[in-house]
Amino acid sequence: MYPIIRPEANNGFGSDSMQVAMIQDKIVPMAELESVHFDRAIYFGDGVYEVVRSYNGKIFALEEHLARFARSLSAIGIVGVDIAQINRRIQKAFDAAGISNAKIYFHITRGSGLREHVCGANIQPNFFLTITEVGDDTKAKTEGITVSTCLDLRWKRCDIKSLNLLPNVLACQDAVKKGCAEAILVDDSGLITEGAASAFFTILDQALQTASLTSNILPSITREFVIEAGKKIRLEIVEESLTPQQAGGADELFIAATTNDIVPVVKFDNVMIGDGKPGKYTKLLIQEFRSFTI
Amino acid sequence: MYPIIRPEANNGFGSDSMQVAMIQDKIVPMAELESVHFDRAIYFGDGVYEVVRSYNGKIFALEEHLARFARSLSAIGIVGVDIAQINRRIQKAFDAAGISNAKIYFHITRGSGLREHVCGANIQPNFFLTITEVGDDTKAKTEGITVSTCLDLRWKRCDIKSLNLLPNVLACQDAVKKGCAEAILVDDSGLITEGAASAFFTILDQALQTASLTSNILPSITREFVIEAGKKIRLEIVEESLTPQQAGGADELFIAATTNDIVPVVKFDNVMIGDGKPGKYTKLLIQEFRSFTI
Repeated sequence: MYPIIRPEANNGFGSDSMQVAMIQDKIVPMAELESVHFDRAIYFGDGVYEVVRSYNGKIFALEEHLARFARSLSAIGIVGVDIAQINRRIQKAFDAAGISNAKIYFHITRGSGLREHVCGANIQPNFFLTITEVGDDTKAKTEGITVSTCLDLRWKRCDIKSLNLLPNVLACQDAVKKGCAEAILVDDSGLITEGAASAFFTILDQALQTASLTSNILPSITREFVIEAGKKIRLEIVEESLTPQQAGGADELFIAATTNDIVPVVKFDNVMIGDGKPGKYTKLLIQEFRSFTI
Repeated sequence: MYPIIRPEANNGFGSDSMQVAMIQDKIVPMAELESVHFDRAIYFGDGVYEVVRSYNGKIFALEEHLARFARSLSAIGIVGVDIAQINRRIQKAFDAAGISNAKIYFHITRGSGLREHVCGANIQPNFFLTITEVGDDTKAKTEGITVSTCLDLRWKRCDIKSLNLLPNVLACQDAVKKGCAEAILVDDSGLITEGAASAFFTILDQALQTASLTSNILPSITREFVIEAGKKIRLEIVEESLTPQQAGGADELFIAATTNDIVPVVKFDNVMIGDGKPGKYTKLLIQEFRSFTI
């Protein structure tokens, strides 16, 4: 468990002064709170995360996720994390959970301490993981989902998989308000970057298009496997950015993310895509992707 | 205290599957974790905060801070928070702490729940507060500090005082590496926005300059009082953005933030400001500001 932090008590004015915390209506001496209450994830989002999943008892692409995790840690200057140890922890928790189709979330934060932007050099990173079952979401996969566009308000280092996800949350809320399942983000210059929680793909004239990897795009692991699948079914691969108008005119659309791999998009900002059913290449890509996971 | 969340257990494949969490090396059934572990602040930074301080036993500008807090809550769609109740909680905790010069930090997050970008409508906001003593920081105030510039990587709604502060943390770390006490952020167009944890001011030819309030600038409460103080000592008020070159050529520089109100800047990106000591108008502003807090 987290070590208990004991901030110096009674260093204020007068003999009865103390450093206090309050949770909802209740006053608690700070020294009595477990250190999770002082995790820098809470105050700053000062950490990075990954989501991996298993298919039928086998974790998919863990090495690729751990490599990206190491890059994210390095990018925000969290040092001294042993990735091999993280790997062992994930395997141990996965074995303990006994969930065949599991969503494995894990993060590392810079650590716990009193709230100051710059922390001491001795701070120890916190590791946290959860394993839950992945629903099959068969309906989304077989019938497709609807999406809506939203202004991309995120910071300038979306290539780092950080815990600063408020703009993503707000975009997803906007989509739900519009009756949609995902928000597709559009930058100031009017170009689509990616989904709020997914990569975004179009298919037009047998070309598979998605944004190229820049500092505004998360280097999605699923994206790499989708491109691999696209090559297998002989689609041309085009890495460039499109406008919403261009996307709305595509033959097929889909999003891709770890939890549900490929999910067809059948309506884009109220424009029906194709005949309003998942397209034939999208269905082929889902099949190809499945073959990677066996 | 937080209510305990009990995610549905044993809904996986096979009779021995369970939803697990892991903290450092230890596996814990998710149902046994207190809900602070599932606070959306941790996973998304999905909350907003304020910092107020007291001078000699009196909380300064609490109403202004609470008004901004209400705007932040509304901007990210956290509804149903009773600001009068928050006010009472702050007063109650402040009375309990018995700290004359106190830094009062508080936040409200959207609540605790399983990690999904969009949460259920029933989620209940979490309130958390800490009170610690403010050091006088007399040295910074009397001798001034050094600052360095850094690219502004933040999101596009810096007017919301949210818990997504990783770019601010990284900027502060960059400043510390350069031996400086604060990072001054510069946007893509080469203009200064504000400090990573402060408002930024220049004085040139008896004009007090700071950036105008846009979606890239936090509407700092201290900034308003500084402008008020500036008018009192008959400085012209200029709200516009400057380049680092222009700032380096100013007569005087200072930063302003709740915890230490006005702190003179005597070196900017290695350029000495004036004679390397706090300027005369900055010292007058510190005096005027102090008069507001009595």
